[in-house]
Amino acid sequence: MDAFNGILKFLLNQKTVIGYSFMALLTLGSERLFSLVAFKCPCSSENVVYGLVFLFAPAWVLLILGFFLNNRSWRLFTGCCVNPRKIFPRGHSCRFFYVLGQITLSSLVAPMMWLSVALLNGTFYECAMSGTKSSRLLALICNHRPKECWEELHKVTCGQTSMTATDNEELKLSLQAQSQILGWCLICSASFFSLLTTCYARCRSKVSYLQLNFWKTYAQREKEQLDNAFLDYASKLSERNLKCFFENKRPEVFPMPTFASWEAAS
Amino acid sequence: MDAFNGILKFLLNQKTVIGYSFMALLTLGSERLFSLVAFKCPCSSENVVYGLVFLFAPAWVLLILGFFLNNRSWRLFTGCCVNPRKIFPRGHSCRFFYVLGQITLSSLVAPMMWLSVALLNGTFYECAMSGTKSSRLLALICNHRPKECWEELHKVTCGQTSMTATDNEELKLSLQAQSQILGWCLICSASFFSLLTTCYARCRSKVSYLQLNFWKTYAQREKEQLDNAFLDYASKLSERNLKCFFENKRPEVFPMPTFASWEAAS
Amino acid sequence: MDAFNGILKFLLNQKTVIGYSFMALLTLGSERLFSLVAFKCPCSSENVVYGLVFLFAPAWVLLILGFFLNNRSWRLFTGCCVNPRKIFPRGHSCRFFYVLGQITLSSLVAPMMWLSVALLNGTFYECAMSGTKSSRLLALICNHRPKECWEELHKVTCGQTSMTATDNEELKLSLQAQSQILGWCLICSASFFSLLTTCYARCRSKVSYLQLNFWKTYAQREKEQLDNAFLDYASKLSERNLKCFFENKRPEVFPMPTFASWEAAS
Repeated sequence: MDAFNGILKFLLNQKTVIGYSFMALLTLGSERLFSLVAFKCPCSSENVVYGLVFLFAPAWVLLILGFFLNNRSWRLFTGCCVNPRKIFPRGHSCRFFYVLGQITLSSLVAPMMWLSVALLNGTFYECAMSGTKSSRLLALICNHRPKECWEELHKVTCGQTSMTATDNEELKLSLQAQSQILGWCLICSASFFSLLTTCYARCRSKVSYLQLNFWKTYAQREKEQLDNAFLDYASKLSERNLKCFFENKRPEVFPMPTFASWEAAS
Repeated sequence: MDAFNGILKFLLNQKTVIGYSFMALLTLGSERLFSLVAFKCPCSSENVVYGLVFLFAPAWVLLILGFFLNNRSWRLFTGCCVNPRKIFPRGHSCRFFYVLGQITLSSLVAPMMWLSVALLNGTFYECAMSGTKSSRLLALICNHRPKECWEELHKVTCGQTSMTATDNEELKLSLQAQSQILGWCLICSASFFSLLTTCYARCRSKVSYLQLNFWKTYAQREKEQLDNAFLDYASKLSERNLKCFFENKRPEVFPMPTFASWEAAS
Repeated sequence: MDAFNGILKFLLNQKTVIGYSFMALLTLGSERLFSLVAFKCPCSSENVVYGLVFLFAPAWVLLILGFFLNNRSWRLFTGCCVNPRKIFPRGHSCRFFYVLGQITLSSLVAPMMWLSVALLNGTFYECAMSGTKSSRLLALICNHRPKECWEELHKVTCGQTSMTATDNEELKLSLQAQSQILGWCLICSASFFSLLTTCYARCRSKVSYLQLNFWKTYAQREKEQLDNAFLDYASKLSERNLKCFFENKRPEVFPMPTFASWEAAS
C-alpha cells in the first residue's frame, strides 16, 4: 500500500509532464483524423490556400482557445475599463505587455504542437507546396526532374500527372521530406526558445528556488481554501437573503470585503 | 510477506538502474515507431539533410528536455540576475561552469541513448550516407563495387537503382554495418567517458564513502520533510490571509524566514 | 508454513548462485536477441570489424557497468584526491592495485559470460573470421577445400558464393565449430582461473573458515543496522534544521562523528 501511495505521489508530481503528453497525444490523434477524414487536396490552383488553411487555421483556433482557458488573461482584463490604472499602473506601464507576453507564450504551446505534428505528417505541406506558382520555389522543387514537373506540379498529390509513376512518387516523397525537415526545425527552435525564455524568467525572479517552490505550494493551498471559503460564504449569504425574502424582512448587515480589497486581491 | 518487502526494498534501492532501463526501453520504442511510421527516405539529393535531421533533431529535443526536468538547473538560475554574486561567487568564479557541466552531462544521457539506438538500427544513417556527394566518402563506400554505385547511390535505399538486386542489397547491408559499428563505438566511448568522469568526481569529493551515503539519505529525508513543512506553513498562512480578507482585518504578523536565509538554503 | 520458510531460507542462502544463474540467463537472452534482430553480416570487407565489434563492444560495456555497480570501487575512489594516503597507505603501496585487481576480477564475470555465450552461438565469430585477409588464417580455414574458398570466403555467411551448397554449408559448420571450441576453452580456463584466485585469496586470509563465515554474517548485519541508523540520524538532523530555518533561529549543536572517524569507518 505504501508503494502504491509512493507511485501515486510521484505521478501527481509529474502533473505538468503528464498534461503535456496528453495534449501531444490529443493533437496527434486529431491531426490524423483531420488528414484522413476531412482533408482532400483539390489538385487545382487552390492547393496553396487549401493547404495553408488546414495548416494554420487549427493553430489559430488553438491559440485563441489557449487565451480562453488561461485564468490569468481573465484576471488581467476583468474590470480594466472601470479601472484603467489597473493594467497600466503608474511607473510600471510595460507590465501589461509583460503579462500579455507571458499569456501569449503559454498559449502558443498547443498551436506549436499542431504545426509540428502537421509538418511531420506532411500531408498539408505537400498539398500547399504543390500548388505554388512562384518560379523560385518551382526551380527548387523541380530541379533535376522531368519538364512536366513545371506544368503539372499541382496534380502530383492526386497522382494524375503525365509523368511516370516513379517520378510522381519521388516528387511526393521529396515534398514530404521537406515538410518533415521543416517540422523538426520548428520543434528544435521552439524547444530551444522556450528553454531560453524560461531561463530568462527564472533569472529575473527576485526570490530563490526554495522560496519559489514554497509560493507555488502556497498558491495551490490558497486556491483550494478560497474555493471552500467562497462556497461557505455564498451558502450563508444566500440563505440569509432567501430567509429575508420569504419573511419580508430587511436583510441584516453581512460582513463583506470592500471593493478595494477585492481589487487588490485579484 | 517479509520476502515481498525484501524484494520491494531491493527494487527501491535499484531505482536508478530501473529508471535508466525504462528510459532505454522508451527510447528504443519511440525510435522503432519513428523509423516505421514517419521516416520515408526521399531517395533524392535531400537524403543527407533528411537523415541527419532524423538522427540529431530528437537528440537535441531530448537534451533540452533534460535541462527542463533537471531541478538543479533551476536551482542554479533562479534569481541569478538579482544576485549575480550567487552564480559567480568570489574566489570560485569557475563554480558556475562546473555545475553547468554537471547538468549538461546528466542531460546528455537521453540524447546519447537516442543516437546509440538510432545508429544500431541503421535506417537514418543509411539514408543520410546514401545521399552524400563528397568524393572521399563515395570512394570509401563504392570501393570494389559496380560503376553505377557512384551515380545512383541515393536511390539505393529505395531499391530503384539499375544495379542487380544482389549488389543493391550488399550496399545496403554495408551501410547498415557501418552505422552499427559507429553505434557500438559511440556506446563504448560514452560508457568509458562516464566511468572516468564519475571516478574523477568521486576522487575530488571531500567526504568519505560512508559520509556521502549518509548525506544522500539525509538529503532525501530533508526533501520529504521540507515538502510536508511547506504544505503545513502554506495552509496556515493562506488560512490566516483568507480570514483577514473576508473579515476586513489587517493580517497579523506571521513568522517567516528572511530573504537571506532563503537564499542561503537554496 | 514451516516447510515454506525452510525453502525460502535455503533459497536466500543460495543468493549468489541464483544471482549468477539469472545473470547467465539474461546474457543468453540478450545475445539471442542481438544476433537475431540487430546482427546482419554485411558479407563484404567490413566483416572482420563488424563481427569483432559485436563480439567485444557489449563485453566492454558490461565490464564498465560492473565497475559502476560495484560498491567497493566507489569506496576506494571517493575522496582519494583529498587524501592520497588513503589509496597508497605507507608500507602497503601495492594495496591499491590489489583492491583494483579484485574489483576488476569480479567485474569480469559478466563480460566473460557474454563472450562465452556469443562464442558458443558462433554467429559473430563466423562473420568476423569469414572476412579475414590474413593468408595464414585463410590457409587454416581453406585447407582441403575448393579454390573459391580463398576468393569468396567473405560471402560464405550469406550463402552467395560460387561454391556448391554442400561446400558452403561445410565451411559454415567448420567456422561455427571453431567458435564453439574457442568458447569452451574460454569457459574452462576462466573457471579454472577463478578457482585458483579464490583458493589463493582464501589461503592468504589471516582468519579461519568459521571466523570468515562469522565476519560475513557480521558485515551483513552491520550494513542493515547502519542503514537504519542513517535513516534515524538523517530524520532527526533534517527535522532540527527545518525547524531552525522556519523559525529563524540558530541551529543547536548536533552530535556528529568527526571527519577522521568517517574516514576510518569507510
